[in-house]
Amino acid sequence: MSVEALSHQDDLERQMTALGRAARAAAAELALAAPAQKDKALLAAAAAIRAKEAAILAANAQDMAGGRAKGLSPALLDRLELTPPRIEAMAAGLEAIADFPDPVGKTLAEWERPNGLRIARVSVPLGVIGIIYESRPNVTADAGGLCLKSGNAAILRGGSESFHSSAVILEALQEGLSAAGLPASALQRPPTSDRAAVGHLLRMSDSIDVIIPRGGRGLIERVMAESRVPVMSHLDGLCHSYIHAAADPEKAIALAVNAKMRRTGICGATETLLIDRAAGRLVAPLLQALSAAGCALRGDPEVVAQGTAAGLSVDPATDADWDTEYLAPILSVKLVEGLDDAIDHINRHGSHHTEAIVTEDAAAAERFLQRVDAGIVMHNTSTQFADGGEFGMGAEIGISTGKLHARGPVGAEQLTSYKYVVRGSGQARP
Amino acid sequence: MSVEALSHQDDLERQMTALGRAARAAAAELALAAPAQKDKALLAAAAAIRAKEAAILAANAQDMAGGRAKGLSPALLDRLELTPPRIEAMAAGLEAIADFPDPVGKTLAEWERPNGLRIARVSVPLGVIGIIYESRPNVTADAGGLCLKSGNAAILRGGSESFHSSAVILEALQEGLSAAGLPASALQRPPTSDRAAVGHLLRMSDSIDVIIPRGGRGLIERVMAESRVPVMSHLDGLCHSYIHAAADPEKAIALAVNAKMRRTGICGATETLLIDRAAGRLVAPLLQALSAAGCALRGDPEVVAQGTAAGLSVDPATDADWDTEYLAPILSVKLVEGLDDAIDHINRHGSHHTEAIVTEDAAAAERFLQRVDAGIVMHNTSTQFADGGEFGMGAEIGISTGKLHARGPVGAEQLTSYKYVVRGSGQARP
Repeated sequence: MSVEALSHQDDLERQMTALGRAARAAAAELALAAPAQKDKALLAAAAAIRAKEAAILAANAQDMAGGRAKGLSPALLDRLELTPPRIEAMAAGLEAIADFPDPVGKTLAEWERPNGLRIARVSVPLGVIGIIYESRPNVTADAGGLCLKSGNAAILRGGSESFHSSAVILEALQEGLSAAGLPASALQRPPTSDRAAVGHLLRMSDSIDVIIPRGGRGLIERVMAESRVPVMSHLDGLCHSYIHAAADPEKAIALAVNAKMRRTGICGATETLLIDRAAGRLVAPLLQALSAAGCALRGDPEVVAQGTAAGLSVDPATDADWDTEYLAPILSVKLVEGLDDAIDHINRHGSHHTEAIVTEDAAAAERFLQRVDAGIVMHNTSTQFADGGEFGMGAEIGISTGKLHARGPVGAEQLTSYKYVVRGSGQARP
Repeated sequence: MSVEALSHQDDLERQMTALGRAARAAAAELALAAPAQKDKALLAAAAAIRAKEAAILAANAQDMAGGRAKGLSPALLDRLELTPPRIEAMAAGLEAIADFPDPVGKTLAEWERPNGLRIARVSVPLGVIGIIYESRPNVTADAGGLCLKSGNAAILRGGSESFHSSAVILEALQEGLSAAGLPASALQRPPTSDRAAVGHLLRMSDSIDVIIPRGGRGLIERVMAESRVPVMSHLDGLCHSYIHAAADPEKAIALAVNAKMRRTGICGATETLLIDRAAGRLVAPLLQALSAAGCALRGDPEVVAQGTAAGLSVDPATDADWDTEYLAPILSVKLVEGLDDAIDHINRHGSHHTEAIVTEDAAAAERFLQRVDAGIVMHNTSTQFADGGEFGMGAEIGISTGKLHARGPVGAEQLTSYKYVVRGSGQARP
């Protein structure tokens, strides 16, 4: 069916309903699939991605041409682009997911009651997961692979920019499913890049168990506002690094530069540097090191004054800067009046993603780790470590900033729920 | 301020915002409270409830008079009524919650990475919980106590019918908090019984982390549709008991009667009895035992025929009966064509709450336990055991029928989230 033929909203509604039904049926099969069968599908999908390299590159060239015509920024075009090494990374990623232990059917706890009832809590898949994401087409492979591993069916709704690339990647995943005797409809996507498809997904509470949005604040806010399906939220990463009074100067400088500049486009990149007034002697060397690494600086009046005195260009920060995720080589820098002021600033302005303190004072570190309200809190290391792979948890769909269900890195294990299994011998309740 | 003065929606909005801010501030204190301090508050609240018995009874008499004037059904009036034993049960319930282990600050997992980073997953409170419930005023004590134990602040929005009773119970809880040096604003309620307050709660995503609705389908559906705050859903309990071909006849009869008739108003009561055609010889004795216990029967045509032949009155079931939670001494009864037909009926009509099979065939039981999609699945016991206390988990807010976060009984432990604590010694990410 041509894309034109889908333009009628009635058709789309009917097709989305059919998609949901097929996903629900496939989820029932996936939930019962043996670990070896799911791993076989993942390995076959990896092979299919390698075999389709030329087709993926051709489809991606089409998407890139469309993106350039639409005037996408260089940063977005870079996210959209697939190269042979990036395609190989997708295939290797699926193989790595296959290697991890199966998260389904694990007995998480078990006990016996005085009346003889035996109770077990056993992990089960969530069911059908709707994933709504933006330009990077490799999310199709990563997210699809994690859903498959965890026994879930998924409806993958990528950005319209990556429509053609994602189509070929999805074909490879479906070939993997078929090769393992599993239903190809376990991984699907809407039939059109029409944004109306997102609206449908958010209302399909009968056939979708969880929506996972991955993208900018605009997408997440739309999903949170409209969705009738429970949402596992991945908000932006407005992360802070805080240089405490008792920070080791060398660590402070190395960690600040790494946390900001190693990669500026990831959600674990530090966006605001807080420097304790009692560590004021470090302001100039910190600004110098960051500037030398290519970072543009914005500061409060005192930071501007110290930077200027050191011969650096530091722009005045506006109120909006303390709430901005730059995802770029820009850093806002603020002096704070001690530990509790830093904690207060972070709890008010952070996005509850990843927050770090640099200090040699163990008590100050513990107070920070306990009182900062974030999915990941860190002492003497770089916020850039906020990553499922770096945590040893394997591939991830992203970092959850919500408190319900999963917080922090969301991998295959976090895509499961559980059920209670109660075994009796005729007990009636008195 | 008088209730009249609150009738302006602007005032209500301003008051709800203030309530949310106070709750957020109190949550930050509660999260750091020592276990002994929270337990002291619970014990002091229990004592205050006992001391206020006369005031609670007087307030409840006012609510009961209002309920009778509004024409509430006898069942609803029974739920609304407080008696000295019910008041004592509330106090004892708070003491039992104090006795349970503290669920906050537990290290749920910890490991070290090759680069020396030490990672721990540590339980933390959810933050601020909004609880929206219907007529039973004792929920104020149970839910408030569980939120306190788990270090959460709560906004408790009970039914308008129980407005006066809940006020006095909440006072007792707040006295307990104050006696332990904790902020009384950790447990609050909206200033008015106006239904508009619910609408405000569902939009307060800045100050409320989770909404837990407890009530009938109408309430839950409104909450799911309107809420911008994540919801932990407690749907109705449309539970089934399935008598398999290999069921022991005595167990089958005893369990069917217990599952339906022990208490008919609880969410774990069986609402539909499925009887395998191969156990057809048990239809008449099952119907006889249920009828003798005072149960009204509705059946498919064959069940009606067998019941009539046995001299019993069995009404024909309509399609709606298979989707109805009676919460009353009424049971729908259906013959099914084997195990998979039973599983299919349950997965289509059940509410994913609690489902039981009665059989001596272990393989059939395992297939049922694995394939039925419900928070609690049972073999050879009564669905009436679906209860946090019976599971040994202590008091519960209810049974979650959603798959996100908590499934099954929701006690203090299920009212927590976690954070990752990462301890380094200067590691930058390569």
